[in-house]
Amino acid sequence: MSLDQAKTDKPHERLAAMLEDDMARVNGLIRERMASEHAPRIPEVTAHLVEAGGKRLRPMLTLAAARLCGYEGDNHVRLAATVEFIHTATLLHDDVVDESDQRRGRPTANLLWDNKSSVLVGDYLFARSFQLMTDTGSLDVLRILSNAAATIAEGEVLQLTAAANLATTEEIYLQVVRGKTAALFAAATEVGGVIADRPDDEVDALRTYGDALGIAFQMADDLLDVAGDAAETGKNVGDDFRERKLTMPIIKTIAAADEDERAFWVRTIEKGRQEESDLETALELIRKHGAIEATRREALGWSETAKNAMRRLPEHELRQILIDLADYVVARIS
Amino acid sequence: MSLDQAKTDKPHERLAAMLEDDMARVNGLIRERMASEHAPRIPEVTAHLVEAGGKRLRPMLTLAAARLCGYEGDNHVRLAATVEFIHTATLLHDDVVDESDQRRGRPTANLLWDNKSSVLVGDYLFARSFQLMTDTGSLDVLRILSNAAATIAEGEVLQLTAAANLATTEEIYLQVVRGKTAALFAAATEVGGVIADRPDDEVDALRTYGDALGIAFQMADDLLDVAGDAAETGKNVGDDFRERKLTMPIIKTIAAADEDERAFWVRTIEKGRQEESDLETALELIRKHGAIEATRREALGWSETAKNAMRRLPEHELRQILIDLADYVVARIS
Repeated sequence: MSLDQAKTDKPHERLAAMLEDDMARVNGLIRERMASEHAPRIPEVTAHLVEAGGKRLRPMLTLAAARLCGYEGDNHVRLAATVEFIHTATLLHDDVVDESDQRRGRPTANLLWDNKSSVLVGDYLFARSFQLMTDTGSLDVLRILSNAAATIAEGEVLQLTAAANLATTEEIYLQVVRGKTAALFAAATEVGGVIADRPDDEVDALRTYGDALGIAFQMADDLLDVAGDAAETGKNVGDDFRERKLTMPIIKTIAAADEDERAFWVRTIEKGRQEESDLETALELIRKHGAIEATRREALGWSETAKNAMRRLPEHELRQILIDLADYVVARIS
Repeated sequence: MSLDQAKTDKPHERLAAMLEDDMARVNGLIRERMASEHAPRIPEVTAHLVEAGGKRLRPMLTLAAARLCGYEGDNHVRLAATVEFIHTATLLHDDVVDESDQRRGRPTANLLWDNKSSVLVGDYLFARSFQLMTDTGSLDVLRILSNAAATIAEGEVLQLTAAANLATTEEIYLQVVRGKTAALFAAATEVGGVIADRPDDEVDALRTYGDALGIAFQMADDLLDVAGDAAETGKNVGDDFRERKLTMPIIKTIAAADEDERAFWVRTIEKGRQEESDLETALELIRKHGAIEATRREALGWSETAKNAMRRLPEHELRQILIDLADYVVARIS
C-alpha cells in the first residue's frame, strides 16, 4: 500500500498488514498447539475463542517489537503465540469469574459448554504457553512471562475484592488495570526486545511502552462508559455503573463526594440497590466533579509516556506505527 | 529413630522424618511465595488449603529423588515448592469443576469464598510455580514441568467428557489417571534426578517410578470404593458409582456386560437415574465379572513396575523407603 493510504488506516490494521507473514505463522502455530490428541473438547473450546476474530493485538505487539529491534530468528513467532495463549486462557477464566454470556459478540464458552470446560481448557492453554516459551530456550523470557502471569492473576483477585468496594483507591485501580491489561502488553513488547538481544535501556523502553499503552487503553475504555456514544463506540453507556465497577471516573467522583453524594454511592455501588434514574444521577455527579476531564488528562498522559518510550528505540517504520497506536487508543476520547 | 522403629512406620512418615529439614525449607518457601502484597485474598485461600495438613507427598518425592541422587544444592527445595503449588492450584480448580464442598475433611475454598476466588488464586499459584521453576535456571526442568501441567489439564478435560460416558475405555482411563495423579508424581521424581545431573537411564527410572506409583495409587483408590470398608479406609463405598464415575472396576464390568446388564449401566451411569438398591446390584455385577480381582492384579502390577524402576537407582536409605511406599499404596488392597 502507499504511504498516504497507510496514514489513513488504523494503526492496528497497518500492523496487521506489515506483519502479515509472521502472523500467518503465529496462527499456524496456535492451531497446531491448541490441538489435543486425547481431548477433542480442547480445540473446540479454543477455536471458538481464538477464531472469533479478535484483533490479535498482543501477538502483533510481540512481533512488532522483535522486528523493529531487527530480530531475524523464529522465537518471535513462538512468543507471539505464547502471548495469545495466555490472553485466551485469561479470557476463558474471566468469563467464568464474571459470569459473562457474550464475548466479541458471540456466546461465551462457559455458556456454550460449561464453566468446567472453560476452567480446564484455560489451564491447558496456560500450560501450552509455558511449553512454547520454554521452547525459546531463554530464561529471561520465562522470567518476564511468568512474572506477567502472576501479575495478571494477582490483579484479577484484587479486582474481585475491589468490586463494589468504595475504599478502592486510584493506586488499587492501577494495580487492577496492570493485571487486566498492562502486564501482558508490557511483557509482549519486552520479550520482543529480549530475544533480539537489545541493550537494557531499549528493553526497558519497550516494557514501558506496553505498560503505558495498556493503562491508556483501559482508562479510555472507562471513560467511554461514562461519556461515550453507544452508536459510535459500540459500548453501552453506564454498563460499568450497573455492574458496580470502580472505574477511574467513578473513583475520582467518590473521592470528591459530600455526605449526601456518598450515601448515593453507598446505596448504588456498595449495596447495589439501583433504580432506573440512578445512572443519570451518577453521570451528573461524574461531570460535576470534573472526573471526565481528569481521567481524560491521565489517559492522554499515559499515551504520551508510551510514545516517549517508543522514541527511545531505533527509527523504524514499525516504531512509527506503534507511536500512532498510542495515539489511536486515546483518539476516541481526545 | 532406630531402624526397627523406622520399619514399623508408614513409608511417607519415614520420608517426612528423613526429609524434615528440607521440608521445613520447602514450607518456608511456600509461605513466602504464596504471599501477595496487594491481594490478601490470595494467601487466605492458599493457606486454607496448603496448611490443611495434606501429606505433602509430591514435594517429598522431589526431595527424596534429589537426595538419593546425591544432590547437594538448593534447587530441590524450589522444585518441591513448585510441585506443591501446581498440586494446590489443581485442587482449587478441581473443586470448582467437581462442585465439591469438602476437601481433607474441611469445607472447600469455593464454598468458603467463591468459585471466582478458587479459579483466580489457582491461576496465581500456577504462575508462582512457573516463577519458581524459572529460578532453578534449568530448561530441562521447565520442559518436564510444563509438559506435566499440559498433561494434567488434558487429563482433566478428558475426564469431563468421559464422565458418565459408557464408551470410556481402559486406555482413556489411563490417560485420565495420568492427568489426575501420575503426571505430577512422574515429574516430581524426574526433576529430582535432572537437577542432580544423573544419567538418562536413572532419570528415566525415576520418571517411571513416579508414573507407576501414581497409577497404582489411583487404581487402589478405585478398588476401595467398590470393595473397601468405610471404617478402615475412611472412604464411603459406592461414592464413585453415585457420582457416575467410570472407574477401572466399573469399566471392566461394563465391558463384560450382557444385554440386561448393559441396560442397567445405561440407566444408572449414562442417564444417572439411580435408585436406592442400585448400588448393591452394581457391586454384585462387579464381583460377578471378577473386576475386583482383575483391577487388584493390575494395581499390584503397577506397584511392581514402580519398585523395579526404583531398583535401577543407586542403593540409598531413601531408595528403600520409596520402594516401601510403592508397596504401601497397594497395601490396603493386597
